[in-house]
Amino acid sequence: MAQQPSSDGTAGLRELGEFGLIDRITASVARTENGTVALGPGDDSAVVLAPDGRVVISTDVYVEGRHFRRDWSSAEDIGHRVAAAALADVSAMGAKPTALVVGLACPADTELSWLDGLTKGLADEAITAEAQIAGGDVSRADVVFISVTALGDLAGLPAVTRSGAAPGGVVAIAGTVGNAAAGLAILSRGFRSGKAYIDAHRRPQPPYAEGPRAAEAGALAMCDVSDGLLQDLGHIAAASGVLIDIDGSAFEIEPRMAEIASALGQDPRAWVYGGGDDHALVAAYPDRSHVPEGWRVIGSVWPVPDGGEPAVTIDGEHPEISGGWGHFAG
Amino acid sequence: MAQQPSSDGTAGLRELGEFGLIDRITASVARTENGTVALGPGDDSAVVLAPDGRVVISTDVYVEGRHFRRDWSSAEDIGHRVAAAALADVSAMGAKPTALVVGLACPADTELSWLDGLTKGLADEAITAEAQIAGGDVSRADVVFISVTALGDLAGLPAVTRSGAAPGGVVAIAGTVGNAAAGLAILSRGFRSGKAYIDAHRRPQPPYAEGPRAAEAGALAMCDVSDGLLQDLGHIAAASGVLIDIDGSAFEIEPRMAEIASALGQDPRAWVYGGGDDHALVAAYPDRSHVPEGWRVIGSVWPVPDGGEPAVTIDGEHPEISGGWGHFAG
Repeated sequence: MAQQPSSDGTAGLRELGEFGLIDRITASVARTENGTVALGPGDDSAVVLAPDGRVVISTDVYVEGRHFRRDWSSAEDIGHRVAAAALADVSAMGAKPTALVVGLACPADTELSWLDGLTKGLADEAITAEAQIAGGDVSRADVVFISVTALGDLAGLPAVTRSGAAPGGVVAIAGTVGNAAAGLAILSRGFRSGKAYIDAHRRPQPPYAEGPRAAEAGALAMCDVSDGLLQDLGHIAAASGVLIDIDGSAFEIEPRMAEIASALGQDPRAWVYGGGDDHALVAAYPDRSHVPEGWRVIGSVWPVPDGGEPAVTIDGEHPEISGGWGHFAG
Repeated sequence: MAQQPSSDGTAGLRELGEFGLIDRITASVARTENGTVALGPGDDSAVVLAPDGRVVISTDVYVEGRHFRRDWSSAEDIGHRVAAAALADVSAMGAKPTALVVGLACPADTELSWLDGLTKGLADEAITAEAQIAGGDVSRADVVFISVTALGDLAGLPAVTRSGAAPGGVVAIAGTVGNAAAGLAILSRGFRSGKAYIDAHRRPQPPYAEGPRAAEAGALAMCDVSDGLLQDLGHIAAASGVLIDIDGSAFEIEPRMAEIASALGQDPRAWVYGGGDDHALVAAYPDRSHVPEGWRVIGSVWPVPDGGEPAVTIDGEHPEISGGWGHFAG
């Protein structure tokens, strides 16, 4: 069944077969090896070290045409993005990423060069997060479907959930918001300028090390910004039963972003408050003294007023921008 | 965004929205709670206990039309099947299943009653394997995609890989082979008789407890039969560098299966030696005295003859039946 890989990388999967593809991917991701995986690809299961006695796990699914377009992003960029999203979810618990497993379904006529690019992106992003690719599964489908499951280790610390924010505390951010959304808006209008934003969309750079750093510093609640700042802070507010007020001056729009938004006829605040794909981390701390280097204070935590609901405000006002998007609403 | 679930279970996902669906699934799988998960659905990641300090992990992807058909299997049966396949992979390492995470992409007009059935099947199978559903992700796609990632704990024992089989040993099986393949053949010809085989296809019953039992008993190599007996034993032979000889008399065809095969004009040995979906476990033991209760000896392990290759024979002959199937060959 398994045959030798074609040498020019442009042949289809049909010739390579399932086991040939698995061998090719396995060879390509071997360079992620870092000692966190006791048994890698090639058996019924992988074995990943979990020295803490607990393992943090997050899974995401990605569908061609919905989460990525093969004409807007290179295979390598897509690999980076899907790995980054899962790894950021692990970091957002305060855990150090350890391993990834990946499921892939794709058309039989997918070019091997595309699959090689995807695999390279996945492996490079894993290496950035210091995680090893431990295994996966491949199958056939009419469109590309990718599932990424990331594992992480808490190193003895409590997991930082969304529910621990307390009135009197501050909210801080590590990483950027809005840049990836600006990049997506540029691409979807067929524009070419604004390379930094396009790059932010194609290859987000989650601040992986800041998750464990926040946990060590005593963060009370944390999540990654994947649905949009307002919506994700809304998750913390709801889970913690608090009101979070954002300091609007913390998010002044960069002149370059304002210029591009104006050219596109869009409101850049929708990118900053509603865009999720930068994978910044946001966390609530007991007070300013706990906020570690690499984080910047953007707001404060308040009790929910009598008769009110947990919510997120900007400078005390309920914002009109509805951040995030619903996967089934469109 | 999230709304109340519709009360009759027939409305589409569009009204429910992503978060509404997540809430509905989370409520439905809460009954799998068994103490192996420290933090369940609702945060960026889940936290699963890994008391051994290692975690066994396996991931599988399933595509509608390729791995299942909504007109041949109920949603509940599909849930059972996909969970069983991933959990059997964990058991096949000698690990006790602990948790599942599930990714799901489906059309926006998918009926909630179908999703409820899928969720029920996943949860019921998890309970059978004593695993807890720890989390997941949902998205939209034109066909149903499901990714299932199973975790397990080795309880201090070495993982039983495919590579430890040694000449002089015996090969044994726990569970059945061929029944699910017979059931699929019946269904694909539109027949209705042979209920036991149809049931075996719709709801395989992997012998979960036999994986850890084999590890305790000193199994040297093990895998689950997911590609077909010949092909999976071929994996053990290749990884271990041995020849495995199956005792053909260990797989006499049941009269009922012979009758159905004859009616369908098919060779029932292709089901027994090439069918994978029963998820039996096969293992190599040092000798007969190590084979635990619940397992039955089906063959023996030999050195590879000079100039030969690792292989699987039946009564000393190289079989003509080519087991398994290639996902990209068809």
